[in-house]
Amino acid sequence: MPHLYVEYSANLAEFPERQLLTELNAAVCGHPTVVDPLDVKSRIAAVQQFAIGTTPGLNGFVHAHLHLLSGRTPEVKKELSDRIAEVLRRLTPQPAGMLVQLSVDVVDMDRGSYYKGRL
Amino acid sequence: MPHLYVEYSANLAEFPERQLLTELNAAVCGHPTVVDPLDVKSRIAAVQQFAIGTTPGLNGFVHAHLHLLSGRTPEVKKELSDRIAEVLRRLTPQPAGMLVQLSVDVVDMDRGSYYKGRL
Amino acid sequence: MPHLYVEYSANLAEFPERQLLTELNAAVCGHPTVVDPLDVKSRIAAVQQFAIGTTPGLNGFVHAHLHLLSGRTPEVKKELSDRIAEVLRRLTPQPAGMLVQLSVDVVDMDRGSYYKGRL
Repeated sequence: MPHLYVEYSANLAEFPERQLLTELNAAVCGHPTVVDPLDVKSRIAAVQQFAIGTTPGLNGFVHAHLHLLSGRTPEVKKELSDRIAEVLRRLTPQPAGMLVQLSVDVVDMDRGSYYKGRL
Repeated sequence: MPHLYVEYSANLAEFPERQLLTELNAAVCGHPTVVDPLDVKSRIAAVQQFAIGTTPGLNGFVHAHLHLLSGRTPEVKKELSDRIAEVLRRLTPQPAGMLVQLSVDVVDMDRGSYYKGRL
Repeated sequence: MPHLYVEYSANLAEFPERQLLTELNAAVCGHPTVVDPLDVKSRIAAVQQFAIGTTPGLNGFVHAHLHLLSGRTPEVKKELSDRIAEVLRRLTPQPAGMLVQLSVDVVDMDRGSYYKGRL
């Protein structure tokens, strides 16, 4: 069920999109609460139009959000967030002079109304 | 107020985007809790860069998320999820040999801070 | 920490993307609860494929969602929503004969599992 989204500011040139997705899926699937790896569906996209703060400056960001069915403990959510953050820190390029912000948000999905099926 | 988003993996060629939006809006607007059809705003987009699981394979997905003002009952949320799922199952193409995962997430929006206006 | 997203229907031609982001960031950063302006990261994108309601008509929308770490009071969330709405009302173009819906959703992010870092 986990749905993972990564967005990065388009000024982060040569962002390793494929490698990041591969390593993020490995990190998330490696957690003992994830039973079926195929449940993990990740996407990544560059954000073309963005603004950070209110003053000019060389700023970039990478933001990930992981959506899980409700019911995971706070500890599990923190562990998954940490795993994702570790991959972001390791693979995000840092252009010279740019301040790059990284963040990870873990979001509960309502288990009672969630639908899951396969064709 | 309902905001509906549909994302599908770009390997689902010839996805019937317009038809899906039309039928999803009809399905959601047909629910007795939706008073004004114009409230239902739906979007669809292909996801170009994605990863499913950790091993190579022919996999695809369609994921919908419906955002509603808080206060709907669990039953109403499940019914809306079911209506959306029915349309996804019916209209999603299935390329030969591909495992296509379908999912629907219903999300509460905070009624107290929600703003709604018209120009 | 605030993450702000703005989506607008692509039939709103000549949408002032840069100006909107600049003014939204100023509005959000001007709120006393926002300490570091660099925390405010905003994005904007046109939605190419959308459907509003169930009948043909000249309809458009602009939808913003602001994601904040959990713990802000309902009053603060309403104030931030109002600030964003004011900018949307002022800067959204209104093509002749089009009904343009505006909306703002304020979303809590789980503070316990949120990760924030910098490169």
